Amino acid sequence: MLTVALPKGELLKHSIHLLQSVGLDFSAFLDSGNRQLQITDASGTAQGLLVRAQDVPVYVEYGQAQLGIVGYDVLQEKKPQVAQLLDLKFGYCRMSVAVKASGTYRSPLDLPANGRVASKYVNCAREYFQNLDLPIEIIPLYGSVELGPITGMSEAIVDLVSTGRTLRENGLIEIATLYESTARLIANPLGYRLNTDNIGELISKLRAAMMASV
Amino acid sequence: MLTVALPKGELLKHSIHLLQSVGLDFSAFLDSGNRQLQITDASGTAQGLLVRAQDVPVYVEYGQAQLGIVGYDVLQEKKPQVAQLLDLKFGYCRMSVAVKASGTYRSPLDLPANGRVASKYVNCAREYFQNLDLPIEIIPLYGSVELGPITGMSEAIVDLVSTGRTLRENGLIEIATLYESTARLIANPLGYRLNTDNIGELISKLRAAMMASV
Repeated sequence: MLTVALPKGELLKHSIHLLQSVGLDFSAFLDSGNRQLQITDASGTAQGLLVRAQDVPVYVEYGQAQLGIVGYDVLQEKKPQVAQLLDLKFGYCRMSVAVKASGTYRSPLDLPANGRVASKYVNCAREYFQNLDLPIEIIPLYGSVELGPITGMSEAIVDLVSTGRTLRENGLIEIATLYESTARLIANPLGYRLNTDNIGELISKLRAAMMASV
Repeated sequence: MLTVALPKGELLKHSIHLLQSVGLDFSAFLDSGNRQLQITDASGTAQGLLVRAQDVPVYVEYGQAQLGIVGYDVLQEKKPQVAQLLDLKFGYCRMSVAVKASGTYRSPLDLPANGRVASKYVNCAREYFQNLDLPIEIIPLYGSVELGPITGMSEAIVDLVSTGRTLRENGLIEIATLYESTARLIANPLGYRLNTDNIGELISKLRAAMMASV
């Protein structure tokens, strides 16, 4: 059976609505009382797998799901072996460099040599500063990255920004953008090439639904 | 001012009670409405920093906190450059290998060559199987590791088990234990050696409180 990996969190609602528009109903995942991580669509043709956003490309890469929906930011950070098929346009955010608004840094080039940058996206951050030829130490954090500059542990952060509210509340401002991110449809490369479970048809429907909504 | 990094989640309540027993009150972190991540104790002598469990050793290693409380599991996985001072005895859990109860594997040695093991603790898992001389592929996941065996993506998982309820609910059983974990008091090595902010006195008090409670 065709399996679609869906990301918990921000992108879930939109992902489920998109799949509903092509006839696959996984809306049970949106029930607040739901504890199931695997749901079969009412039509019996497809299964939804509800996992952490970062885990979506893992299930797709290993072929446990033929398709998946995930943010471009996760793909940039993990560089998984998956086929990127469609930009789904929702879930807009950007990967930004931010610093204390009260400080003097207004560009990444203002940061001191051997300065520190805290981030949950260590690969993205490292690559960005290497391309700028800036010797920066990346401090890997799992949460509340804004504490880096606030406590003085780092001069800057690299983090995902959507409304910018968290930055403002913590007295931080963006000084550069690494890239913009939206939700993407991804597929297992082999499954896509061999058209396993006729995924080509579903992909065509999703593409058409995207075109119609623009 | 002396700063103590405290872990969000399971260990927080016990950590705060322990610090209260030596005169430092960070109980405001337990208020459900609290959004602050930094709190100064009423005595004005110490600051509490509320961060993700995995980030506690980072703040301690970089000296933004002189002391921290964190699970042994995090120290085993990250191997941070911190001084381990005290076993605080609470927060017991164990790092275990688990497989499907319905399958035939009853020991790690039963796992097939080039089998797959899903885990959030990739370093612990890799080291364990290397020491057993078993060629195992580690699949890194961020959440719901139990889906590994359930979906057939992996033969086993390596995960933290406390009551074992999640395993039972998912039809999994433990077949080996890597190590047992409890909360630990850690310190910045240099701060500990130089007795910055007189942390030696606080450590002595915490040691005495631990001895008294046994």
